[in-house]
Amino acid sequence: MDLHILDHRLRVTSISKTGLEQYTHPLIKLIFLRNRTRCKFFSLTETPENYTVVLDEEGFKELQPSEHLQVEGSTWLPLNVVSNGNASSSSQSVGVTKIAKSVIAPLAEQHVSVFMLSTYQTDFILVREKDLSVVVESLVEEFNIFREEGGESVPVHSQDACNGLQRNVPHATVHPVLIPENQFCVMSLDPDTLPAIATILIDVLFYSNRYETCCCKLLGDLWRSLFAVISHSLSPFSDECGIVAQISQPLADSDISAYYISTFSFDHALVNKIESSVFLRCFST
Amino acid sequence: MDLHILDHRLRVTSISKTGLEQYTHPLIKLIFLRNRTRCKFFSLTETPENYTVVLDEEGFKELQPSEHLQVEGSTWLPLNVVSNGNASSSSQSVGVTKIAKSVIAPLAEQHVSVFMLSTYQTDFILVREKDLSVVVESLVEEFNIFREEGGESVPVHSQDACNGLQRNVPHATVHPVLIPENQFCVMSLDPDTLPAIATILIDVLFYSNRYETCCCKLLGDLWRSLFAVISHSLSPFSDECGIVAQISQPLADSDISAYYISTFSFDHALVNKIESSVFLRCFST
Repeated sequence: MDLHILDHRLRVTSISKTGLEQYTHPLIKLIFLRNRTRCKFFSLTETPENYTVVLDEEGFKELQPSEHLQVEGSTWLPLNVVSNGNASSSSQSVGVTKIAKSVIAPLAEQHVSVFMLSTYQTDFILVREKDLSVVVESLVEEFNIFREEGGESVPVHSQDACNGLQRNVPHATVHPVLIPENQFCVMSLDPDTLPAIATILIDVLFYSNRYETCCCKLLGDLWRSLFAVISHSLSPFSDECGIVAQISQPLADSDISAYYISTFSFDHALVNKIESSVFLRCFST
Repeated sequence: MDLHILDHRLRVTSISKTGLEQYTHPLIKLIFLRNRTRCKFFSLTETPENYTVVLDEEGFKELQPSEHLQVEGSTWLPLNVVSNGNASSSSQSVGVTKIAKSVIAPLAEQHVSVFMLSTYQTDFILVREKDLSVVVESLVEEFNIFREEGGESVPVHSQDACNGLQRNVPHATVHPVLIPENQFCVMSLDPDTLPAIATILIDVLFYSNRYETCCCKLLGDLWRSLFAVISHSLSPFSDECGIVAQISQPLADSDISAYYISTFSFDHALVNKIESSVFLRCFST
């Protein structure tokens, strides 16, 4: 399998609930007017706590500093697992399940924090730029690693593969897992369709206080699967690494599909509702 | 002919160019999300000087006070001329031409300031609420006047028709008239079509510094006629009344169609480009 280090340097930020109005202008530009910005990577996740915005440095320039904007100190790089020349597809076993053993577990062993962003098509594993050499050394045995630079994929070789790393014992800490009642639909949208539903999305994102209700109105026939969300009570930036590993490992062992979405405050796993009873068995000890 | 005093109490405001970003959130709500607001009358006009926003009291509540928001002190009421049971239609002689003699001139004679808002379908003549009795007395001879209240049209009778009013001589002051090179298209949009072009309109309104260029891109095949704009160098709120009358009278005399749009800083008349040579003859003395 191939592992690609994508050509984006990302910032992870949080906008407070009360600060949204102040950031409506740059956010609408970043979401809907792609010709107006040079931002190439953008993700916005609303949770009850805040809005987590992950974006590249061009996009980050659009966000004026204020008391409502928190910025994680590091620069993050997105990794992408490609099997047989294709980015991991949701038609196979979806989400982090597929990469739980090969990527997430080895990084957890090396105490590397990951920030996960699952999408309909693929999973992005974000790692801190300063951790990159450890990441490469941890994964070079399992993957052909490429760094994308200006459209080219350049092979990356570990300087002294693995001999500087020692296998750590997996984490003994068991992080608390919450299972809220929220249910989600996961779908994908062609960029050309975006303008057609812009006002609905703007309504949901910027003017609705009842996120779930509006989202369902929007989805209509488009929904694919219903997912239950599991939240960790620990921030993805906490010193405790292996939060993703803790949940992805038992899911992978039971062959349960999952999406994984990190936010500024918590990590969230989405598992198929049909499989949620199996899932509960994994975690009830 | 009938004159209707519509059931809206309007405020005339101005948002500075640099303040637009701060008002993006309420403006997008007012323009695109009609279910989110109880605002029933909304008009936004961009000029090189500022954004003029005319809206009813429900809409006005959405605009937080700030250094970027100027508010004209009065409450304004919109009047609407209806002939043969229909609001004046643009398929006949358009705009203020039709009402120049019957409405605008008599009000100018009584030193009543008017704020004009022509639309594709009809012309709104805004007058200050405190001037209403003078307005009624000035126009009661020419019109059946109705006040719309909760969906009902209630006839309005002048308390002592005209006997308190004396015919003033028309204004001697001749206000300077500028003819910029801008050209405009005037069109009408079905409310149901609005979401389909929302991102284009948002782009034009909130992110473009080259208003004219973007507007042309937007219009495509929809344009009807090309209009040249004529600006007055006097604010519609200045003590000098009769600005609209000064320009509408000679246009009406020559049977030239015109749209008339007042903004916070200036009055603007739009005349059909084909007729603009005739127009120039009206004003070159």
